[in-house]
Amino acid sequence: MTEPERGTAAPDAGLPAAVPPALRPSTALLTDKYELTMLQAALADGTAHRHCVFEVFTRRLPAGRRYGVLAGTGRVLEALPHFRFDDAELAFLEEAQVVDARTIDFLSGYRFTGTMLGYAEGETFFPGSPVLQVEGTFAEAVLLETLVLSILNYDSAVASAASRMTSAAVDRPVLEMGARRANEQAAVAAARAAVVAGFAGTSNLEAGYRYGLPTIGTAAHAFTLLHDDELSAFRSQVAALGPGTTLLVDTYDVRRGVENAVAAAGTGLGAVRLDSGDLGGLAVEVRRQLDELGATGTKITVTSDLDEYAIASLAAVPVDSYGVGTSLVTGSGAPTCGMVYKLVARADAHGVLQPVAKASANKTSQGGRKQAARRIGEDGRATEEVLVTGPDALVAAWAPESDDLRPLLAPLVMEGAVDSRWTGAYGVQNAARTHQTSRAELPRGARRLSSGDPAIPTVEHRLG
Amino acid sequence: MTEPERGTAAPDAGLPAAVPPALRPSTALLTDKYELTMLQAALADGTAHRHCVFEVFTRRLPAGRRYGVLAGTGRVLEALPHFRFDDAELAFLEEAQVVDARTIDFLSGYRFTGTMLGYAEGETFFPGSPVLQVEGTFAEAVLLETLVLSILNYDSAVASAASRMTSAAVDRPVLEMGARRANEQAAVAAARAAVVAGFAGTSNLEAGYRYGLPTIGTAAHAFTLLHDDELSAFRSQVAALGPGTTLLVDTYDVRRGVENAVAAAGTGLGAVRLDSGDLGGLAVEVRRQLDELGATGTKITVTSDLDEYAIASLAAVPVDSYGVGTSLVTGSGAPTCGMVYKLVARADAHGVLQPVAKASANKTSQGGRKQAARRIGEDGRATEEVLVTGPDALVAAWAPESDDLRPLLAPLVMEGAVDSRWTGAYGVQNAARTHQTSRAELPRGARRLSSGDPAIPTVEHRLG
Repeated sequence: MTEPERGTAAPDAGLPAAVPPALRPSTALLTDKYELTMLQAALADGTAHRHCVFEVFTRRLPAGRRYGVLAGTGRVLEALPHFRFDDAELAFLEEAQVVDARTIDFLSGYRFTGTMLGYAEGETFFPGSPVLQVEGTFAEAVLLETLVLSILNYDSAVASAASRMTSAAVDRPVLEMGARRANEQAAVAAARAAVVAGFAGTSNLEAGYRYGLPTIGTAAHAFTLLHDDELSAFRSQVAALGPGTTLLVDTYDVRRGVENAVAAAGTGLGAVRLDSGDLGGLAVEVRRQLDELGATGTKITVTSDLDEYAIASLAAVPVDSYGVGTSLVTGSGAPTCGMVYKLVARADAHGVLQPVAKASANKTSQGGRKQAARRIGEDGRATEEVLVTGPDALVAAWAPESDDLRPLLAPLVMEGAVDSRWTGAYGVQNAARTHQTSRAELPRGARRLSSGDPAIPTVEHRLG
Repeated sequence: MTEPERGTAAPDAGLPAAVPPALRPSTALLTDKYELTMLQAALADGTAHRHCVFEVFTRRLPAGRRYGVLAGTGRVLEALPHFRFDDAELAFLEEAQVVDARTIDFLSGYRFTGTMLGYAEGETFFPGSPVLQVEGTFAEAVLLETLVLSILNYDSAVASAASRMTSAAVDRPVLEMGARRANEQAAVAAARAAVVAGFAGTSNLEAGYRYGLPTIGTAAHAFTLLHDDELSAFRSQVAALGPGTTLLVDTYDVRRGVENAVAAAGTGLGAVRLDSGDLGGLAVEVRRQLDELGATGTKITVTSDLDEYAIASLAAVPVDSYGVGTSLVTGSGAPTCGMVYKLVARADAHGVLQPVAKASANKTSQGGRKQAARRIGEDGRATEEVLVTGPDALVAAWAPESDDLRPLLAPLVMEGAVDSRWTGAYGVQNAARTHQTSRAELPRGARRLSSGDPAIPTVEHRLG
């Protein structure tokens, strides 16, 4: 082994040494610099304390998608109490001269004391849906922009893809196995978002630990290759994990692999996994072979680069479950949502809340706080996403005037206090139930995988 | 505000409450369950202690890409000392019945004591390049699979896209602003990977804190909308941040915005930012207007959904810097690399290292440890990626026989000890230098954005 010439100098003194993310207790620097410099200017001119309403929404769904799935709300609420500028953060902001002393003083006492309303996590959404509404002073609300968007954009991208996969799989379980194709912390969020959208479990242990998700696993080709032969490997796995385990049968030859699997585990073998080749054809052959060997109860799980289209194409094939990795954690072609965090209303110099909006081309908006509701037809299916607009007092006080409107904004944070029912393992279970109900309520066409328009139109209902 | 019926039940007792990632000191559960169950079986049958070599490589580049850029190596090394199973992890594994008591006992003492060789971070790579080689017992090496792949696959996907962007920008600075379009922790990794591939700075404060990266920022439309009018907003920003600041001029009308900007800051205004519309046409008009107003030194930065193609299309336009978000953090169409972590050699029952490889269709490999070198032509440009294979003793001892071969594997971890020159802020600076040199050495065609084959072929050089 020869060492290249590069990188041989000793580390410079004065540079930060490695600081692993796991050792950082604060979420406050998961923030774009401009939020802090805007704060500095607004503190200096007095506008920092103007009352503001920010809304999170997306202008459009990814091309061809019929609906989006909101995920990450619980994670936003979990991160919020840790959005604090402690000694390490304040020292960095001072040394790096990010903001001035007055701003650092303000940040040292920062706590979010405002209100957040939002769609329930797991709810479906459409263009314009105000999935989160953050209300408070400019100072306290503007700082949260990046963290809120990071969480909602990624988690919702994953959940939106995941929902198409569980929809395509109908009643067969879909399992999350994508950690290796995503940033290591994103992977935990992806596993959580997948379960929100109906996945039955995840291979990711950290996600199991943090959110109480069911964890699943089989074995890698490395385990077979480690042993002197496949039969030894299978016998070892069965001895350790019992005959109910899943054996990976495609390291050498699938037909021989299935023989070895049943020889090692008996006809009570839990499952075999196929990870390569023509999965549809192989599954038919393997099913026949298993049945001939008497292993009629042994299941078949498949895992090779599946996405919602591949899952749909296997609907008529004797497959019992699907393991999905890459396409899940990368949003199956849409790796982020286009959610934005926009100031829609702020107090004027007299303390009166005024609607505001950017005026430039292609991004037209009336501004102002919104309410949202889903209109449900007589058949129990959604027909419209209704955005309620108008004078702020009317909008804020709005309640549905008829039974066919299901209101969508729920309280998440009241005067800084996080409602714990949205967080932790309970929050995930709750979100999964919400998603199941919400998706079932969409028009039938919403679940088609082919490209199309949003499943329901977004319409404005203007008060006053 | 009306509360929907969903999610109103009280949280169940017994479910895990919210555990924010920031409070988790261990990286050990960022792991797929099967690594631990394989370990359990291998501990039981004695193969866990077989000496093994795993290699990380990708079988192909994303469609049309000419080269890949390795990033994340430093982060792997930073995570390694924290890959420990402490009380919380062990209690979870026991309670969730992930593995048996013997395995938990083994994990409680787990430390990686093996060796890692790898390409220097920032190095370009090609199909088959063994960018990381992990050598140790099966037990200690197999556990790292998911964490290593998560880090390298995401960071390298970002760096590979980033390199195309900095290449297209030629000498103009490119700035990272994508945090809001990526998982909040992935965003920090993305900022770091972008700087490895030549980005000049990032808006992400946490990345500035952890890795000493230059942080940059302008202002959002919300800041202008917060104020009674644009001129007040600009005056406030200039008062707080000085005339060298960057003013966002497209909230209402760009021409009027530029007038207000120069009125607020004077002709010494640092820069204006354009975030919407036809950037090429606008930049020409704004440049002319700024010059007419005497603000000849004021720069123009553009930021609206740029990717490498948009950057290239603005080459002839008077733009001074580019801010890139979404397309950077999502790998510009390739949001993950296809890197795999494969067992290529393991000791047999007699302790002799034997090459191993999966035999199934489309994934052919000889197995065995590799060395790697880049062959450099007389013009100083790379001509081949050379993979040195053959009997393990010969490969392990190989050194280049001629000056035209630049060896690529460097020591990263020796007997469990991490070489700190690859980590922290120094590691990032080092990687950025490595990338600059390595990219400059590629054939000229490598930097074309159009689709094509890998810039150099991967060839095998078999010893013995």
